[in-house]
Amino acid sequence: MAKSKYEYVKQFEKNDVLLPNTWLVVRIDGRGFHKFSDQHKFKKPNDQDALNLMNKCAVSVMNDIHDIVLAYGQSDEYSFVLKKDCALYGRRETKIVSTIVSLFTSNYVFYWKNYFPQKELLYPPSFDGRAVLYPADNNFRDYLSWRQVDCHINNLYNTCFWALVISGKTESEAENALRGTISSEKNELLFSQFKINYNNLPEMFRKGSVIIRKEVDVKTTCENGMEVTRKKKVALILHDDIIGDKFWKENPTLGVII
Amino acid sequence: MAKSKYEYVKQFEKNDVLLPNTWLVVRIDGRGFHKFSDQHKFKKPNDQDALNLMNKCAVSVMNDIHDIVLAYGQSDEYSFVLKKDCALYGRRETKIVSTIVSLFTSNYVFYWKNYFPQKELLYPPSFDGRAVLYPADNNFRDYLSWRQVDCHINNLYNTCFWALVISGKTESEAENALRGTISSEKNELLFSQFKINYNNLPEMFRKGSVIIRKEVDVKTTCENGMEVTRKKKVALILHDDIIGDKFWKENPTLGVII
Amino acid sequence: MAKSKYEYVKQFEKNDVLLPNTWLVVRIDGRGFHKFSDQHKFKKPNDQDALNLMNKCAVSVMNDIHDIVLAYGQSDEYSFVLKKDCALYGRRETKIVSTIVSLFTSNYVFYWKNYFPQKELLYPPSFDGRAVLYPADNNFRDYLSWRQVDCHINNLYNTCFWALVISGKTESEAENALRGTISSEKNELLFSQFKINYNNLPEMFRKGSVIIRKEVDVKTTCENGMEVTRKKKVALILHDDIIGDKFWKENPTLGVII
Amino acid sequence: MAKSKYEYVKQFEKNDVLLPNTWLVVRIDGRGFHKFSDQHKFKKPNDQDALNLMNKCAVSVMNDIHDIVLAYGQSDEYSFVLKKDCALYGRRETKIVSTIVSLFTSNYVFYWKNYFPQKELLYPPSFDGRAVLYPADNNFRDYLSWRQVDCHINNLYNTCFWALVISGKTESEAENALRGTISSEKNELLFSQFKINYNNLPEMFRKGSVIIRKEVDVKTTCENGMEVTRKKKVALILHDDIIGDKFWKENPTLGVII
Repeated sequence: MAKSKYEYVKQFEKNDVLLPNTWLVVRIDGRGFHKFSDQHKFKKPNDQDALNLMNKCAVSVMNDIHDIVLAYGQSDEYSFVLKKDCALYGRRETKIVSTIVSLFTSNYVFYWKNYFPQKELLYPPSFDGRAVLYPADNNFRDYLSWRQVDCHINNLYNTCFWALVISGKTESEAENALRGTISSEKNELLFSQFKINYNNLPEMFRKGSVIIRKEVDVKTTCENGMEVTRKKKVALILHDDIIGDKFWKENPTLGVII
Repeated sequence: MAKSKYEYVKQFEKNDVLLPNTWLVVRIDGRGFHKFSDQHKFKKPNDQDALNLMNKCAVSVMNDIHDIVLAYGQSDEYSFVLKKDCALYGRRETKIVSTIVSLFTSNYVFYWKNYFPQKELLYPPSFDGRAVLYPADNNFRDYLSWRQVDCHINNLYNTCFWALVISGKTESEAENALRGTISSEKNELLFSQFKINYNNLPEMFRKGSVIIRKEVDVKTTCENGMEVTRKKKVALILHDDIIGDKFWKENPTLGVII
Repeated sequence: MAKSKYEYVKQFEKNDVLLPNTWLVVRIDGRGFHKFSDQHKFKKPNDQDALNLMNKCAVSVMNDIHDIVLAYGQSDEYSFVLKKDCALYGRRETKIVSTIVSLFTSNYVFYWKNYFPQKELLYPPSFDGRAVLYPADNNFRDYLSWRQVDCHINNLYNTCFWALVISGKTESEAENALRGTISSEKNELLFSQFKINYNNLPEMFRKGSVIIRKEVDVKTTCENGMEVTRKKKVALILHDDIIGDKFWKENPTLGVII
Repeated sequence: MAKSKYEYVKQFEKNDVLLPNTWLVVRIDGRGFHKFSDQHKFKKPNDQDALNLMNKCAVSVMNDIHDIVLAYGQSDEYSFVLKKDCALYGRRETKIVSTIVSLFTSNYVFYWKNYFPQKELLYPPSFDGRAVLYPADNNFRDYLSWRQVDCHINNLYNTCFWALVISGKTESEAENALRGTISSEKNELLFSQFKINYNNLPEMFRKGSVIIRKEVDVKTTCENGMEVTRKKKVALILHDDIIGDKFWKENPTLGVII
């Protein structure tokens, strides 16, 4: 195609290639999701359908962007991990982040009706994203541990808070009751006042969701009617602990050396 | 909330604050929209509904992000302009780009059914985004001129190409017929062979769409039944020439000095 | 030359090209010059020889790097201004900053003996440098105003401080005497106690030094003995006010529009 | 001190903090040293005094900047390595690079007379600098291997080239004679035509210089006349191979895991 005399303006574009051989984490966060979850009447402290929709979106992103080797999500956030040697889009930061955040958002609106068949989506939700580089395996693992500990701390607090509110306390009374309490006191409060054993709550609420690719057996029926089993890599949603060594030992293809 | 020992990983986040007092353009582009428009049977060379949906999304983005003073769109791309003194999100680049691309995408899926009531959206579409800084008014205007000239060049070519294809030529025959032709030859071809006067085609196809905020009179009926007229700033979609001085003289609030 | 298998490590080099069409200021600062000036017994509050050496170095840098259009210096710092359209080293930031700081340092050691023939240089002095971009003329002018106001504020304070110390006060008594005083009080103190009219002090001390290129007449004697006058651009050291408009009106080739 | 209304211009300064926990290499290069070495009549292909002056400067830089754990030099270049956890100047890139390049330059001019007592320094030499990050030990080692292989390739070529020129060939005849030759052919040429066994040439020429800190015994005489031996860390200049594992095994404090 012909070029115009204005084409020089491309020279103002910045080169934002990320350092090679470094773990890349792209985290997306719900924008204004406090209001969004109120208006869409999400269950408190956890809405299983909303979390399942988040997981569905993350799986879709992983199926589209093959350089993502792991995703970890909780609440209205999801972290996507690209391997150290990832060369996606020449490692251009804005291109990678904007593509992932757009894909996630698109899936969220697209699949909403599958997870909330009775609730209409009232307005278009949005997410923001960021990229962070981690040069060493231990920094990268600590990043994921940070998010999973955050999930635990928030969920324990929210479980107590909403139990108190549902039991008749005002929101500020609930806040005051919890101020300064440590984990063991919150566990005790749940058990003694509400007969809730925190450790029996669903793992998705307590640990978040981690998605990795695993080889599984897939059965298909051939034209001649014979059933055959083939190996296929699929994105699996787990609710495992990713802080300890066990997870990383069991998944050596992630490339983290223990 | 309690902090964990893993919190140090935040130190790896990069500061990506953009240079102050500089025009900021965020351009989003459809990802794989050649295939997307084929699969959704968009009309060639222009699908009015698809363009109107793009414009609707851009208006929604502007209604959400008040720092955007102008948007220009054509085909599957849209450029959003933030004023030189914009302080949105502390001018953090990735935050700004990811938010705009997410909002645009969300609106695209959300409003699809309004523009294509007969066509189901087959899969979630996505966009990527980038930010470019322009320090001087003339560089910034040249950026927009570059996009509008691009719109013209592509549209003239595509109008010829699809006229030839619809008339019975194969796609490669049409390509060969157009190879090396200049604008006047393409105009002549449209007129002599297809009785199409290119300049009579819809302005949206030839010039794209430019959205700015304008003060308009809004009529409202008060409680006592009286009708009052108030001034209100709304985002208006125009199909004007933005290359010449006229547009910029007529819209001095954009802050471009002629 | 042959290439080695290790050459891939060049891919880790970052692209640090600066935004085009933007004023570029490189400021160098003496490193540990408080100790350096003590050990070399610089006169207080101003050492004329030390300032002249700084100016000599700045002129040398400008004679080497032709993209520098103006330099401003005071105390142990110097700012070098490169025009908006400067394409030096492809506008690579580290290359530009490191070259300027190295040239300045080299000249400082090289020409020391010319300015301090009686004092031996005791150890190698050093400077650090930084680059700052200014997109608009007024931001760029405000940068220089900031440095010249800083020169004035520091010099007025130091003139009072050393006058008090030389008159017999201890350094902490002098500090206490000056704490909280405003400009007019410091001027009054100098005049009433020490008969110093601040405005009669050398302009280099009060305003710093600004270096620009000016066309001057240069006389040369030809082979045949005839004397001819030619125009030549040379770097001139001035001690002018660069805060007001006058300087910029008188030097339109600097490209700042008033 | 009082602040001025111009102080806002500091907001235009960019944050250039380097990624944590990553090897940082700062390489300085002589600027125009081809001409510089000609004008100062450096011996060809290697001038021992010039190389010793480079080494002296590098030791001085290391004695000043304690975060540097290793330096490697050859010809008119020197690379300084800062440990992964280095927090010097908050890891600000321009501050680190400009300080190192300034210190090196200053020492070069300052100590010139010690290495060239008979030759006056004709004009101030200068260097430029750059910073490169290496996230993994093997990338970092490959960087140093790249520079040492470069030293070997250049030195072998230059040794042949100057032997031919000294023997009476023109420079272009020497170039033609060497074009396309491989290492073994150059070794053979040196031995058969000039009786030079390349491997017997000084190691500094063939391998460059590597400087690390080592604990050595230092003898001091106390006031009472007794001689005592103390351990002290000093910067030692070696001419070792740094490509193989041996060097890294023998110097475990460098923190490279074999």
